[in-house]
Amino acid sequence: MSHYYRLVVSCPDRRGIVARVSGFIAGHGGSITEASQHSDLESGRFFMRYEILADSIGMTSSELKEAFEPVAREFDMTWALRDTRRRPRVAIMVSRESHCLVDLLYRWTAGELEGDVVGVISNHDDMRSLVEWHGLPYFHVPVAADDKLAAFDEVERCVEALEADVVVLARYMQILPPRLCERYAGRVINIHHSFLPSFAGARPYHQAHSRGVKLIGATCHYVTEELDAGPIIEQDIHRVSHCHTPQDLVRFGRDVEKAVLARGLRWHLEDRVLIHGNKTVVFA
Amino acid sequence: MSHYYRLVVSCPDRRGIVARVSGFIAGHGGSITEASQHSDLESGRFFMRYEILADSIGMTSSELKEAFEPVAREFDMTWALRDTRRRPRVAIMVSRESHCLVDLLYRWTAGELEGDVVGVISNHDDMRSLVEWHGLPYFHVPVAADDKLAAFDEVERCVEALEADVVVLARYMQILPPRLCERYAGRVINIHHSFLPSFAGARPYHQAHSRGVKLIGATCHYVTEELDAGPIIEQDIHRVSHCHTPQDLVRFGRDVEKAVLARGLRWHLEDRVLIHGNKTVVFA
Amino acid sequence: MSHYYRLVVSCPDRRGIVARVSGFIAGHGGSITEASQHSDLESGRFFMRYEILADSIGMTSSELKEAFEPVAREFDMTWALRDTRRRPRVAIMVSRESHCLVDLLYRWTAGELEGDVVGVISNHDDMRSLVEWHGLPYFHVPVAADDKLAAFDEVERCVEALEADVVVLARYMQILPPRLCERYAGRVINIHHSFLPSFAGARPYHQAHSRGVKLIGATCHYVTEELDAGPIIEQDIHRVSHCHTPQDLVRFGRDVEKAVLARGLRWHLEDRVLIHGNKTVVFA
Amino acid sequence: MSHYYRLVVSCPDRRGIVARVSGFIAGHGGSITEASQHSDLESGRFFMRYEILADSIGMTSSELKEAFEPVAREFDMTWALRDTRRRPRVAIMVSRESHCLVDLLYRWTAGELEGDVVGVISNHDDMRSLVEWHGLPYFHVPVAADDKLAAFDEVERCVEALEADVVVLARYMQILPPRLCERYAGRVINIHHSFLPSFAGARPYHQAHSRGVKLIGATCHYVTEELDAGPIIEQDIHRVSHCHTPQDLVRFGRDVEKAVLARGLRWHLEDRVLIHGNKTVVFA
Repeated sequence: MSHYYRLVVSCPDRRGIVARVSGFIAGHGGSITEASQHSDLESGRFFMRYEILADSIGMTSSELKEAFEPVAREFDMTWALRDTRRRPRVAIMVSRESHCLVDLLYRWTAGELEGDVVGVISNHDDMRSLVEWHGLPYFHVPVAADDKLAAFDEVERCVEALEADVVVLARYMQILPPRLCERYAGRVINIHHSFLPSFAGARPYHQAHSRGVKLIGATCHYVTEELDAGPIIEQDIHRVSHCHTPQDLVRFGRDVEKAVLARGLRWHLEDRVLIHGNKTVVFA
Repeated sequence: MSHYYRLVVSCPDRRGIVARVSGFIAGHGGSITEASQHSDLESGRFFMRYEILADSIGMTSSELKEAFEPVAREFDMTWALRDTRRRPRVAIMVSRESHCLVDLLYRWTAGELEGDVVGVISNHDDMRSLVEWHGLPYFHVPVAADDKLAAFDEVERCVEALEADVVVLARYMQILPPRLCERYAGRVINIHHSFLPSFAGARPYHQAHSRGVKLIGATCHYVTEELDAGPIIEQDIHRVSHCHTPQDLVRFGRDVEKAVLARGLRWHLEDRVLIHGNKTVVFA
Repeated sequence: MSHYYRLVVSCPDRRGIVARVSGFIAGHGGSITEASQHSDLESGRFFMRYEILADSIGMTSSELKEAFEPVAREFDMTWALRDTRRRPRVAIMVSRESHCLVDLLYRWTAGELEGDVVGVISNHDDMRSLVEWHGLPYFHVPVAADDKLAAFDEVERCVEALEADVVVLARYMQILPPRLCERYAGRVINIHHSFLPSFAGARPYHQAHSRGVKLIGATCHYVTEELDAGPIIEQDIHRVSHCHTPQDLVRFGRDVEKAVLARGLRWHLEDRVLIHGNKTVVFA
Repeated sequence: MSHYYRLVVSCPDRRGIVARVSGFIAGHGGSITEASQHSDLESGRFFMRYEILADSIGMTSSELKEAFEPVAREFDMTWALRDTRRRPRVAIMVSRESHCLVDLLYRWTAGELEGDVVGVISNHDDMRSLVEWHGLPYFHVPVAADDKLAAFDEVERCVEALEADVVVLARYMQILPPRLCERYAGRVINIHHSFLPSFAGARPYHQAHSRGVKLIGATCHYVTEELDAGPIIEQDIHRVSHCHTPQDLVRFGRDVEKAVLARGLRWHLEDRVLIHGNKTVVFA
C-alpha cells in the first residue's frame, strides 16, 4: 500500500510560500495528492498541509526533512513532516461511561483511524474486560479526592510507558492537572458533553433541560489549563423537544459525543488540525 | 374551506382529563382532526391541544366556550379556544436589516402563515417602500437615546392601533421596556442571532468567530424582562469553519435567523406553543 | 421500576374514538403518561398509542385485554396491548460487516433498547467471538448459492429456537425468501445502505459516487417480498463532496446506517411504529 | 475595495502543476488569498482555483491571461481567468411560483451574490410587479403547447438581449429544448424539487408522500439535454413525518429549494464549481 509524507506548515503569510514549497517538492519529483491552504487575514498567518506520495520522492522522511529545513527557516515556519507509516499511538482515558470507548475501539479495529489505540487508562476498573478482549493493556489508576497528584503522576507514567502520541479523554470525568496539560499541549483531546460555550461545567444536559433549549450538542477540543476553554476541533448538535427527559438528553448526547470525538480524533491523526492561538484550522 | 375550533389547555395533571375533554367534544358531535398531549412529569403539569372540525359541532365558538367552562373549572385549567377564522394580527418591528422582514412578508403572501401581517414599525425609515409595496402601513418611530420612553409610548400606540395579537421583533435592535414586555407577555416573539445561552448580548457572530466555534445558531424566544432569557420556542444552527470571516458568519446567520423565526411564528400562530414557566411545550 | 401497558390501535376514523378509549381507561382508574394520535385524512384511518401506568390499573394485562375487547370490536380496531415487562426478543442477522452489530450490542448493554438481543445468526463465522463475549448464542448458517432454501429453513429454525419477536437484518447481505418475509411480516427490520428509493440494489455507494450526489443516506424499513420496497421507518443522510472516494462514502455510510437502524429498532421495540399499507406512522 | 483575479484550471494530473502555476504567480508578485486543489484519482484529472489579489500584480487581466497562455498550453489546461470587477450577469426564469425568485432578489439586493440579476423571463405575467419594483426588466414569453419552438426562440433572444452569463431556472416549469441546453452548456442552473435521483419527473413531492419517505430534498444542477440528469452542484433535505400532507411537503420543499439554489448559484458565480464529466468539483 502507498504511504505518504505529510507536510504541515504554519508561518507568517507572505508572497511566494506556495511557490517555494511546491517548487521544492516538484524539484524532488514529488507527487502531491492532497493540498490545503489557508490565509488567516486577521492574524496574517498562513497554514498549509500537503500529502505527498512517498514513492514519488527518492528520499527517506529524515532526508526530506533535512532538505526542507532551509525553506522552513527562510519563511520562519512552524512545521512537521510525518511518514504515514509511522502510525500515531493513542492512549484512551475513560471513567465509567463506555460509549466513546466502544466507538473508538470499533473504529480502530475497522481501520477507520490512521493510528493505533495502544492502551486504556481509567480511574475505575469497569472497562477492563472489554479492553482486554481487544488485546489492549488496561491501567486502573484510582483518583483519590485527597491525593490527586499522586494519581496523576501514575497516569503520566502510564502515558509515557505507552509511548502515546495522543491522549483521548473519552469521557474521563477528572480534570487534568496543569503539568499534564502543559506537557502534552496540543496532544490531549477531550469530548465535552455540551455545545460550548453554553453549559460549561457539570451536568450540562441537566442545565440544558432546565433552560429548555431545543438543541443539545457536544464539543471536541484540545485540553488547556483553563477548563473547557481550549481550541475547538469539532462540534455537533442533536434536536430535542419538551418530550425529552434529562435522561433522554443524556442518551442523545452520547450519540453526538461519539460522533464528534471520532471526527476530531480522526482529523488530528491525519494531521488535519492546526492550532492557531485558541482556535483551530481544520483541513477536513 | 373548513375552519376549526382550536382548544389549548394546561392544568395540573390528574387522571381522566383526556377522557373528560374528549368525552365533552364527542358529546357535542365534534370531530377531532389533530390531538396532542404532554404530561410534564417533573412539574406534574398537563398540556393538550385539540383541533376540532368546526362544522362537526353545531355551536359557535362562544357557545362552545360557555359549554366548556365547567369542565375547565373542574380541572383548574388555563385554556383558550379559538375559531381559526379569526386570524391573528401580526405587527412586525424591524431596524435596518431586512432579511427576516422580507422572508415573513413572502410567507404571509404565500399563505404559509395562519395569520395576517397588519403593519410594520421601525426605528428607521429604510423599509418603507418595501412594506408599502405590500400594501401595509409603515410606522417610523425613531428611538432617541435620551428619550426612549417617549418612543416606546409611541410604539405602544402603534401596536394598539394595529390591534396586533402578536408582535414580532424581526431584528429590531432595541430593548423593549419592562412595561411593554409585561403588557404583551407571551405575545412578543424575538429572533436572537445566537445559539442561546452562548453569546448572549451584542455582536454574537463576532464573539462566535473569536471563540472559534464550528457551529453558529439562532434562537426564537418570547421576550421577557430579563434580556435574552425568555422561553425558547425554536433553535437551529449552521456549520462554519476556519475559512469563514465574521461577515460570512453574519450571512449564514441571516439564513438561520429567517428559518428559525418563521418556524417559531408559524407555530405560535397555530397555537402550538404553550408557555410553561421559562420553557415551552411545542406541539410541532 | 414502573411498568406500563402500551395500547396501540388503528381503525377506521370516526367520531368518539378517543373519548371511548380514554373513557375506558379513566373508568379503570388508568393514568395515561404518553398519548399520540393521528388521523390520516387520505385513507380515513385513525392511529393511536397510549402508554398507561400499569400500577394505576388494578388488572393484569390479560384482564385489561379482555375488558377492552368489546371496545375494539365496536370500532373495528386492529390493536395490541403489551405489558412492558414482557420485553421483546431480538434476533440479529449479520454478514461480514460488524458496525451495526457492534452498535446494537452496545445500545442493548447500555440499556437503550426496550428489548433483549437473544442471539445472532450469520452466514459467516467472523463475529462469533464478539457475540459470545456478550454472552449470546451465535448461529453460523452458511448460505450456499445452489441451496439457499435449505439454508433459510435452518435460519427459520434458529429464529424459532430463539423465540424472536423481531429479526434485525444488520447488514445481512442475503435476500430473504418470500416464505420468511410473509411469516414474519412487520417483524423483520432491514437497514438499506442508500437513501431509498435512490440507488436500490447493489453497491449503492458506488452508484452514488458515480452519479456525483452531494448527500448519501440510509433507510431503515420493514422487509417485504418486493426487494427494498417495504414500509420506511426512518432515513437519514450524510454530506459528501468531490473529495470523497467510494471508500469514504462506505465509511460515512456506516455511521448513517448505525444511527438509522438504531432509531428504527428502538421505535419498533417501543411500539411507536404502526404499519399503514406501504407506509408507516411513527410516534417518535 | 479589493478586486481579484480568479484563475480556474482543470487538466490531466501530473507532477509540478502547482509548482508551475504558483511559481508563475509568485514570479509576477501575485498574492494568493485563497487556493483550492483537487486530484481526481479515478480519472487522473487535476482541478485548481486560485484567488489572486489584483493589486499585487502589475497587469490587467488581459495581460495576465496572455502571460499565462504558455503555461496553460504546456499542461493542456482547460482554464479561465476572471477579474472579479467584471460581475456575471444573471437572467432568472420563473413560472408561477415565486419563492426562489423572491429569495434570489433579496440576496442580490443584500449583496450576497457576486453577480447581478439583470432581468426575469417568465411564461406567465404574474411576477411583473415584483420584478419591476426591483428595477428590473420583465419578459413575458408565453409557451404555447403547440408552438414551443417559437417561444424558445424568443427566450433565446431575451437571454441574448440581457447579455446573460448565467441562466437560472428558478422553478421554471418548462423543459428547455436541446439547442438552448447545448448553447448555454454549463451556464444554465436548475433547481429540481426532489432529492435526485429519487423522484425525477413530475410532482415529486406527491411521489415522495406516497412512498412514505421520511426526508424530502432538492437538487441544484446544471441543465443538460437529458432531463434531470445534469451535473449536481448541491443538494439538501428536510425531515418529514406521517403528519405531513403533500401540501406540507410542498411548503417544506420551497425552503429547501431556495436554500439549495442560492448556494449553487453563489458558488457558480464565485467560480467555485468545475464541471467534470457528469459530476462537479465544488470548492465551497
